[in-house]
Amino acid sequence: MKFSLAIGALFASSVAAFAPSAAVPKSTALAGFTSSVFEPVEVQLADTTETIVKGGRDLFPLLPTAFEGIKNIGVIGWGSQAPAQAQNLRDSLNEAGADIKVSIGLREGSSSFTEAKACGFSEDEGTLGEMFSVIGESDLVILLISDAAQAKLYKEVFAAMKPGATLGLSHGFLLGYLDSINESFPEDMDVIAVCPKGMGPSVRRLYEQGKEVNGAGINASFGVHQDVSGKATDLALGWGVALGSPFMFETTLRSEYCSDIYGERGILLGAVHGIVESLFRRYQRQGMTPEQAFTESCESITGKITKIISTQGIKAVYDGLSDEDKEVFKQAYSASYMPAKEILQEIYDEVASCNEIRTVIMHGERTDKFPVGKIDGTYTWQVGEKVRAARDEENIPMNAFTAGVYVATMMAQCDVLLEAGHPYSEVINESVIEAVDSLCPYMHYRGVAFMVDNCSFTAKTGSRKWAPRFDYILEQLAYTAVDNGKAVSEELIADFENHPIHGAVVECCKLRPSVDISCEAETSTKEIVIE
Amino acid sequence: MKFSLAIGALFASSVAAFAPSAAVPKSTALAGFTSSVFEPVEVQLADTTETIVKGGRDLFPLLPTAFEGIKNIGVIGWGSQAPAQAQNLRDSLNEAGADIKVSIGLREGSSSFTEAKACGFSEDEGTLGEMFSVIGESDLVILLISDAAQAKLYKEVFAAMKPGATLGLSHGFLLGYLDSINESFPEDMDVIAVCPKGMGPSVRRLYEQGKEVNGAGINASFGVHQDVSGKATDLALGWGVALGSPFMFETTLRSEYCSDIYGERGILLGAVHGIVESLFRRYQRQGMTPEQAFTESCESITGKITKIISTQGIKAVYDGLSDEDKEVFKQAYSASYMPAKEILQEIYDEVASCNEIRTVIMHGERTDKFPVGKIDGTYTWQVGEKVRAARDEENIPMNAFTAGVYVATMMAQCDVLLEAGHPYSEVINESVIEAVDSLCPYMHYRGVAFMVDNCSFTAKTGSRKWAPRFDYILEQLAYTAVDNGKAVSEELIADFENHPIHGAVVECCKLRPSVDISCEAETSTKEIVIE
Repeated sequence: MKFSLAIGALFASSVAAFAPSAAVPKSTALAGFTSSVFEPVEVQLADTTETIVKGGRDLFPLLPTAFEGIKNIGVIGWGSQAPAQAQNLRDSLNEAGADIKVSIGLREGSSSFTEAKACGFSEDEGTLGEMFSVIGESDLVILLISDAAQAKLYKEVFAAMKPGATLGLSHGFLLGYLDSINESFPEDMDVIAVCPKGMGPSVRRLYEQGKEVNGAGINASFGVHQDVSGKATDLALGWGVALGSPFMFETTLRSEYCSDIYGERGILLGAVHGIVESLFRRYQRQGMTPEQAFTESCESITGKITKIISTQGIKAVYDGLSDEDKEVFKQAYSASYMPAKEILQEIYDEVASCNEIRTVIMHGERTDKFPVGKIDGTYTWQVGEKVRAARDEENIPMNAFTAGVYVATMMAQCDVLLEAGHPYSEVINESVIEAVDSLCPYMHYRGVAFMVDNCSFTAKTGSRKWAPRFDYILEQLAYTAVDNGKAVSEELIADFENHPIHGAVVECCKLRPSVDISCEAETSTKEIVIE
Repeated sequence: MKFSLAIGALFASSVAAFAPSAAVPKSTALAGFTSSVFEPVEVQLADTTETIVKGGRDLFPLLPTAFEGIKNIGVIGWGSQAPAQAQNLRDSLNEAGADIKVSIGLREGSSSFTEAKACGFSEDEGTLGEMFSVIGESDLVILLISDAAQAKLYKEVFAAMKPGATLGLSHGFLLGYLDSINESFPEDMDVIAVCPKGMGPSVRRLYEQGKEVNGAGINASFGVHQDVSGKATDLALGWGVALGSPFMFETTLRSEYCSDIYGERGILLGAVHGIVESLFRRYQRQGMTPEQAFTESCESITGKITKIISTQGIKAVYDGLSDEDKEVFKQAYSASYMPAKEILQEIYDEVASCNEIRTVIMHGERTDKFPVGKIDGTYTWQVGEKVRAARDEENIPMNAFTAGVYVATMMAQCDVLLEAGHPYSEVINESVIEAVDSLCPYMHYRGVAFMVDNCSFTAKTGSRKWAPRFDYILEQLAYTAVDNGKAVSEELIADFENHPIHGAVVECCKLRPSVDISCEAETSTKEIVIE
């Protein structure tokens, strides 16, 4: 099976080369799954068939069976995901008539106690408490504290858990960290993940809307990393259904952290930042005013190109251009694909070798001495603020050169993942849907710099590290090629036009929630966690 | 002793955190050394006393004693260092009347056979041959093949060596690579390093000039990593004297690779590139023409500032400014020091944790698919070429803002090394003297981009990776602070003015070769190896 061979081989070779004494991680191959509670359905994505599970409020009556043996769920933390997941779980289990208590566990003295109380959790009723005591009482511990806190506290968390309790994650980071230090989860523990493909506030908002509009909610991937009890798959699927996910697709924790940490460094955030900086300079050198240059680069991406991709797929961006603009697009695409892919492959290798996670941890250890500064004060983003203030949404231009660069980077991002063996569902959710339906709309609303300055530490570290690399390599290799009149690569363009991902994106779009993800200001007071 | 504690602690913590099963590297503390052949002398550098050995042609009669037991020296490779070192060794040992054969070992079919023959090495006389057969016949194997080749071939090299033969290196990279994969040198082998602090062609050129001008030559650091025979120190010192080094200072291979790989990513190359790009943009936004902006940024650094540092020390740059310019310098210095240091500390941590070496190796494995492109086609360097062509050397300006940014970065680079426990001799040679006497003059002669495009793969990978990080952080944090009127930090300025390094630089300048390092075109046909 391509997936297991390719990812397995990458890990085997990178780990073997750099830490011969480390246990080579087990295969990241999808186990394939069966469920005695929910009914998997098959979807055809390009030349592969994937098995997914459809969610929906009509499945709530199945939740008591899926959560069999679970009396107490402890949701640990109060960041982006925790408030949403805890409330959705509580509401769904309540509606299903399940006798399951959902509690919040926080650091002693955390200022989030107040917010948790406002959401109906209470110390008096035993649904709010100090994290380790909540962990000790829970049959399912959903660990939603920050990456850095997970890396720091994982031993205490494992030690505090009841025998037979299940560890739930919404992100593969902790496995990545354990891989990087050659450790692993305790063997006698079920370890599962449900990873909603959107920001926490959207997970709650869409769930609330879903009370009237069936199918509203955020899709999630799920993974079963350790299944000692034999019940882990049903529990994971039940968790996803209770969150309101319209669809759940299978992944592994290792595949998840690779694609996730990679994605936010690439087209979700870091690459957009770098592309905009490079084009903003280029267009000014070509004679545009700063405001025009920002509009033709950043606004064109976040306000026009990604909207087309969101509703009509990637190729529609090209198909909708005039003949003249098609030539411009082809030039930009053809010159940018390989340089962008070079950086993207480097990111993937850094993540898969655990280098990138070590970098994040080391960076975290330096923040006392070097607090992470903001990026939003530079000329580019100051101009951006002015442009947004005067924005005429209807007349945001479709710049064909910008589109060529952006689409080439998105395609390169997908190809790196596909070549490493990730399944189409994960590739498309992490590299296309999340970009055009979640991150870009948010950046359109508040600006790229605001997003970088307010996202999770892992994402921020990564986008600050990689954005300048995209900027430099595009300027050094792509734009020089265009300016020197290098011929369009008909091969690259044919690969683009005939890429099987286009059909798969259309299929995935059918699996999208029925309501658009919200970008309202309420999310701006919290760290934005990119899932 | 500060040195052993600090570096030891850094390694212990980074290695312990990321590879618990890896052997924690032994202390990198200087052993302190004695020699029965050469006479060490003490020099006072700031508040520390270091022991060095003075070279010179008058010591050549001691070479037969220093090389006792060595009949055959195999110099492996024909890159930047090998031609210089092989010829200097041959000529010096010859002059000393030692019966020692110096041979060149090359890959079968290497195109360098012709060049080696032109330098007097010959298959007929048994002084030129296939690398592994030369290795097998040598009592001292000086391994000067590229970093990538060392990483690939080290097992075969160790296996081919005679029992009792000594391995000689001119760079700590191989130890860094072995550290990164948790391996080590065979225990029964002497392992030494002599690391000339200049490019190979200069090592040869100055040696030739030294035949008339005593004291001409390139300073070197030396390190004894394994001393099974008890003769390793004398052999290393003899090697350095035979190369023509006027002075040799002690290091360890681990300290060497950390400071070396770190340095070329920082003020030697990567930081200069990033500083120039950021200032080139800034000055144009402030109204300068592109040519002016390039002159006030790049030319000011490579043609004016570094010349002052080279002859009068770092602080002289500030002391020589008008009162008005001093204020500009202080603003720029004060705003740039911490942002530059943030990136420099990150580089140091990445190198010390072995992450950076893994990155270089992984990058090397991608070059089939992604050949390393040139950076010299961008607008910045095209303008630079024009500026160099029309250069009026006498009238290159001293831009006080540029000076503040550059000097802050150099001071931050030194401080990171000093805080990690590196001795002043190494800090000053790697971060000040090599910058102002070797790299910057070369960049002034051929351009920053040419240097980046033609240096060793390890240096090139690093400078391409880190230059954009300096660029972005200066623009995001330093220049915004200046533009927002942030007050000068009198504390940072006082630290600068009273820094003990200024006196130590003056002492080190006394140890400089008596002839300036040459930048003639003959070096341009080869990869430039930064030592």
